[in-house]
Amino acid sequence: MVRLFIPHDLAPGAELALDPGQSRYLVAVMRLGVGDDVHLFNGRDGEWRATISAVTKRAVAVRAAASTRPQAMGPDLDLVVALVKRARLETIVEKACELGVRRVQPVVTERTNAERTRVERLTAIATEAAEQTGRLDVPAILEPVKLEKLIGGWEAGRRLLFCDEAGDAEPILEALKDETVGPWAILIGPEGGFSPSERRALRALDYATPASLGPRILRADTAAITALALWQAALGDWRASATGP
Amino acid sequence: MVRLFIPHDLAPGAELALDPGQSRYLVAVMRLGVGDDVHLFNGRDGEWRATISAVTKRAVAVRAAASTRPQAMGPDLDLVVALVKRARLETIVEKACELGVRRVQPVVTERTNAERTRVERLTAIATEAAEQTGRLDVPAILEPVKLEKLIGGWEAGRRLLFCDEAGDAEPILEALKDETVGPWAILIGPEGGFSPSERRALRALDYATPASLGPRILRADTAAITALALWQAALGDWRASATGP
Repeated sequence: MVRLFIPHDLAPGAELALDPGQSRYLVAVMRLGVGDDVHLFNGRDGEWRATISAVTKRAVAVRAAASTRPQAMGPDLDLVVALVKRARLETIVEKACELGVRRVQPVVTERTNAERTRVERLTAIATEAAEQTGRLDVPAILEPVKLEKLIGGWEAGRRLLFCDEAGDAEPILEALKDETVGPWAILIGPEGGFSPSERRALRALDYATPASLGPRILRADTAAITALALWQAALGDWRASATGP
Repeated sequence: MVRLFIPHDLAPGAELALDPGQSRYLVAVMRLGVGDDVHLFNGRDGEWRATISAVTKRAVAVRAAASTRPQAMGPDLDLVVALVKRARLETIVEKACELGVRRVQPVVTERTNAERTRVERLTAIATEAAEQTGRLDVPAILEPVKLEKLIGGWEAGRRLLFCDEAGDAEPILEALKDETVGPWAILIGPEGGFSPSERRALRALDYATPASLGPRILRADTAAITALALWQAALGDWRASATGP
């Protein structure tokens, strides 16, 4: 069934108008009409079954019928990723959403060729991915910051998995073996790597765990996707003991 | 340094002409000329440093100088992947190469919307990815076969990691915990999933290990990339004890 993220509150009988894009999608692409059901979620009230109650030229209206899943969140995991080329950054955002991150924080590093980040466009990609992947929230896409500033204001208690391609870090599963569940972030550098001084600064952080992603050179998107999956499998909701999204 | 895959044998002093695409790339894109060095590999003779010896309108000639790395192969890992939309299949081939697979075997399943597979184009993508990722061979892209036929002629002794999204399989790290190193394949289904009869057949194979990739619905490319990374981390060359590509 079609799943849509909406800003409105969800409660039994709540009637709401979908935005023009969603309205067009339901009618023109999915060929739905009055009486057909969709799923709605807003990141707060869980997932609801709703029925299309009106179709006008301007908008589709739906009425919430019943809750189908209670609100739940994935693990408290952020992805901190150096700004890379637009297409790869968009892939990273789509995949980070499928892999259950809560927030994506783009960072500017010494070797970043900073293109302008279109947070709005990345948020649209994250929203569509959330609709497809079945999660009940949309990851937040934050405004880019400089790596130095991010480290300077680091949230107390959040661990950092620092994917260090320079080669002498432990393999990722080894590195995560003795770590514990809790707030985490995964840091992926630019394709040119971190500068020596950035690496030194990152290695010196007491909340950072360096890890290696194998013997081959990885594109930034491959590094981000694989590190997220390994983290979810070792410490997150890909484990048997963890609960769903 | 630029790395190029070539068909020729490599030996000290060997002089060879690069193909038109590679010649154009070196001169027009990388702005290299006579006297500049590149790295060459052919999947048999390791990696060699070579020097550009001539640039004509038709081709760039290079002379092999010295071996820089002996030939080595990654683990004996195949990716068996249902034919998915062209862009996603191309992403899968690029990433499978970065993640060290030896062969990519496209398969036709009941729910596959089979587009024509352009093996030649996928091989070009695999070659470029091999050049970038630093490996010393190019994964083979095989002609598509039907899943039934592939299972019928399965190679004795090769294990199969069957990524089963239907939900009751063990989490992937659990599933791989007691498995051993050796020839393996990873099977990724189409976005519509395997049919019930395909799942029954796959579950019945004594060489197959079903595994779950977490609680969210994954795109085929995400499933392929994450399963390959988890396998490499658990049984392949992302482990501390394993050797490089």
